[in-house]
Amino acid sequence: MFAKDCWYVAALAREVDRTLLARTIANEQLIFYRTEAGQPVAMLDRCPHRLVPLSAGKLVGDAVQCGYHGITFNHDGRCIKVPGEHQISPKFCSTVFPAVERWGFVWVWLGDPAAADESKLPQDFHWGTEPEWTPLSDSLRVEGNYQLLVDNLLDLSHEAFLHMGTIGNAAVAETPAEITIRGDFVQVARFMKDCQPPKLFVRAAGFNTNIDRRQRILFTPPCYVVIEVVAVPTGTQGEERRLAWWVLNALTPETERTTHYFWGLPRGFAHDDAELTEMLRAGIFKTFEEDRVMIEAQQRILDRVSLDTRTVYTKADQAPGRARSMVSAMIALEAKRTHPGLDTGV
Amino acid sequence: MFAKDCWYVAALAREVDRTLLARTIANEQLIFYRTEAGQPVAMLDRCPHRLVPLSAGKLVGDAVQCGYHGITFNHDGRCIKVPGEHQISPKFCSTVFPAVERWGFVWVWLGDPAAADESKLPQDFHWGTEPEWTPLSDSLRVEGNYQLLVDNLLDLSHEAFLHMGTIGNAAVAETPAEITIRGDFVQVARFMKDCQPPKLFVRAAGFNTNIDRRQRILFTPPCYVVIEVVAVPTGTQGEERRLAWWVLNALTPETERTTHYFWGLPRGFAHDDAELTEMLRAGIFKTFEEDRVMIEAQQRILDRVSLDTRTVYTKADQAPGRARSMVSAMIALEAKRTHPGLDTGV
Amino acid sequence: MFAKDCWYVAALAREVDRTLLARTIANEQLIFYRTEAGQPVAMLDRCPHRLVPLSAGKLVGDAVQCGYHGITFNHDGRCIKVPGEHQISPKFCSTVFPAVERWGFVWVWLGDPAAADESKLPQDFHWGTEPEWTPLSDSLRVEGNYQLLVDNLLDLSHEAFLHMGTIGNAAVAETPAEITIRGDFVQVARFMKDCQPPKLFVRAAGFNTNIDRRQRILFTPPCYVVIEVVAVPTGTQGEERRLAWWVLNALTPETERTTHYFWGLPRGFAHDDAELTEMLRAGIFKTFEEDRVMIEAQQRILDRVSLDTRTVYTKADQAPGRARSMVSAMIALEAKRTHPGLDTGV
Repeated sequence: MFAKDCWYVAALAREVDRTLLARTIANEQLIFYRTEAGQPVAMLDRCPHRLVPLSAGKLVGDAVQCGYHGITFNHDGRCIKVPGEHQISPKFCSTVFPAVERWGFVWVWLGDPAAADESKLPQDFHWGTEPEWTPLSDSLRVEGNYQLLVDNLLDLSHEAFLHMGTIGNAAVAETPAEITIRGDFVQVARFMKDCQPPKLFVRAAGFNTNIDRRQRILFTPPCYVVIEVVAVPTGTQGEERRLAWWVLNALTPETERTTHYFWGLPRGFAHDDAELTEMLRAGIFKTFEEDRVMIEAQQRILDRVSLDTRTVYTKADQAPGRARSMVSAMIALEAKRTHPGLDTGV
Repeated sequence: MFAKDCWYVAALAREVDRTLLARTIANEQLIFYRTEAGQPVAMLDRCPHRLVPLSAGKLVGDAVQCGYHGITFNHDGRCIKVPGEHQISPKFCSTVFPAVERWGFVWVWLGDPAAADESKLPQDFHWGTEPEWTPLSDSLRVEGNYQLLVDNLLDLSHEAFLHMGTIGNAAVAETPAEITIRGDFVQVARFMKDCQPPKLFVRAAGFNTNIDRRQRILFTPPCYVVIEVVAVPTGTQGEERRLAWWVLNALTPETERTTHYFWGLPRGFAHDDAELTEMLRAGIFKTFEEDRVMIEAQQRILDRVSLDTRTVYTKADQAPGRARSMVSAMIALEAKRTHPGLDTGV
Repeated sequence: MFAKDCWYVAALAREVDRTLLARTIANEQLIFYRTEAGQPVAMLDRCPHRLVPLSAGKLVGDAVQCGYHGITFNHDGRCIKVPGEHQISPKFCSTVFPAVERWGFVWVWLGDPAAADESKLPQDFHWGTEPEWTPLSDSLRVEGNYQLLVDNLLDLSHEAFLHMGTIGNAAVAETPAEITIRGDFVQVARFMKDCQPPKLFVRAAGFNTNIDRRQRILFTPPCYVVIEVVAVPTGTQGEERRLAWWVLNALTPETERTTHYFWGLPRGFAHDDAELTEMLRAGIFKTFEEDRVMIEAQQRILDRVSLDTRTVYTKADQAPGRARSMVSAMIALEAKRTHPGLDTGV
């Protein structure tokens, strides 16, 4: 079960064009394309006539023509052609979903269309396309539930064991974090003074001394985790060397056990260094690949045993635990709205 | 659930020889072979001793010797040898099914053997081996339910979208069809006057003008669709150029979601042209491969959603809808015969 | 459902070293390694913190450090480190199982640890490392239930059909066996006088005449079958040529439908012939590969139909039938001990 009244990142903006992109978001099989005017469209990937995928068809102007019997639907879902018939019932239509392009991503809203308000986009993602920041974004697919990736990002002590080749150092596991819990977000902040710089930090900013490293992790439901990262040579304000970036993580559920992991890494330094951009892309992919392998192994275990068989809890588990509660509450609230008579415990 | 009191095409005649051919028909795992006298035999592919496949054994004369413990069954199912034992209980036997070779195919009867009457073979298939017609037959496997292929063949308007490289032209989608429904068949006939010849028609009969094209599609339950096709240059009787063939389609269920698609294309022209035969084989394979890809995508959707979620119906859906009803009635009638007390709604 | 209060072979001794070996035994996902002192350790392959596999971590001394958050467990299961925390609850622990190395194999006990008595090891396996016998052992994986392999070994008449290229001869199917059934074992003995030597016997012992061949098969529950094999030229005591070996079969269930097949072939002749050892290894692998293919085909049929659909029983089926009853009784007895109020029919 997924939250529906929220925006999910469905694609990198550059993935959506004048062809039909088939992609499953939160168990809904969808197609994405752009109108001739450039607007993103999200439509159910299923012809309502014979239930074949519309992605096997083609674009005709702004409309989608089914590849089987040629029935054609406009970008608003209305059926505009049934070959061999002159009258088309106004009931004939395909299902479309609100979609919007913002901050380098295409977002889709699967719930009540009337509630699809752009102010509900996770605003911290604006860093993805700020003029003074150099953008970088990409994605990978993980065969694990999206909440395992939220757990992962809200307890970064794992960097000290899984990511020592890129962003990990010993300090991240040993430094106590300050956890802040509010009604609509969870924040985990950690200030690591005078610590060894992680290998990727050295390659990115040329540190040759110990550093002061700050990370602030911010979760908003159901699946957004943004991380503010700043590092400077110990005891300085970073006049000569300063690393500053945001890690934008959109952990879009594909199915109950698979995730589209969209990420951005806008940085506030070395703006004209295209080589650095590609080095960072490779470094983040190496890091997230290490996560992917671990999370997929975890998912395969969870396919057999329940998370309730956990017996070891740490202080760091508080943040991901709270994040899960917030998502459960969100889903329960939606159920209550949809089925008012139902007692969902909210 | 499948109809059982009927003949299914199990193999091309040339596939059945003095080796053991393992093939599943309507969920029954079977072996096929020929006796020394040439008669086709169909036997359950399962030794009744240890439940290993008999197809892992070998032929010894007309009998099948299990490859595990050497227990041997005659072509009538009788056990004729248990190694190490002198007495064989007459209860020991394997299961055999009526099988017959006719019109280039081997047919099997899975229901009541007493009812396995050759007069119940779909008689239109006789075109497959008529002396004045040049035979051509082959098969493919489709990962989709056989009824999706019946639906496909009873609404050939799809040729105008899926098969424009071979047998499709625009006329087939725009020309109204005459649908005839009787107790034991459904017929869809379409006469396309003065239309553009499909590409495969041009290659086969050398048309260099518009044509008059006639197609008559005839369904008989549970899974036979034969199509009579005639095309001549517009306004002529085809004195100089005439295309005439039958498409024989036997859509044998393998399982609920897979089909053995056996087909024949006997033609009434250009009899000695072996090159044409191979060109037609390639053309039909290209066409049915396009169908296969579409039907398999449709099946994958039907694995998740019900056919009842259809909301768009066209006039052309009447024929496949009626064909499905006929098959349901056939299965219900068999259930009533097998379990007389059961109310099957027939 | 598997018997738990028994020793299962989990690995060849040479497979267990100072790395983490992940292996599933009777549905339990485990890791195996050796302490610095050389003792084998068996531990659940699951960190009790976040349920990731410990096999993705590493050994630190005798302890296992999880590869995700660095939580560390000693070889007795006790948690000895949680990074970032100073106090560790004594409740924090991983699950360990009794493990022992004996006769060239590592054995694990999955049931009540208090009952893990080494005297309960199947004693006939001592032949695996007797000083006067040349050892040989190896393993393969079979995608079939372990009891199908017990069935296989308790009815060796199949050698005459499946293994004619190695250990089969006609006599083994035609010679009546003497079956002995006791409370805790089943024995099948067969003396084949003046028979043709199997091909592998000729290659191993150079027979150039008929032989007298003796095989004694001994099953002990739940999954041990040892076979004593002796062959001499007919009418001699084997003064010049004598083949003598034990086939040790440990059919360890991996899951309900897969088996780790561990085997030994200690021989009492030609001790210094390393080439013979490798020839025998290849010969046994060829033989067991023939079994594997047959058992996997049988398992695929049993995935669809019940063993109760068997209708042909032979005299030779008595031994495997009795072996299955003994295992069922063993499992029922364990259930009664674990749930004293439960009526298990024992």
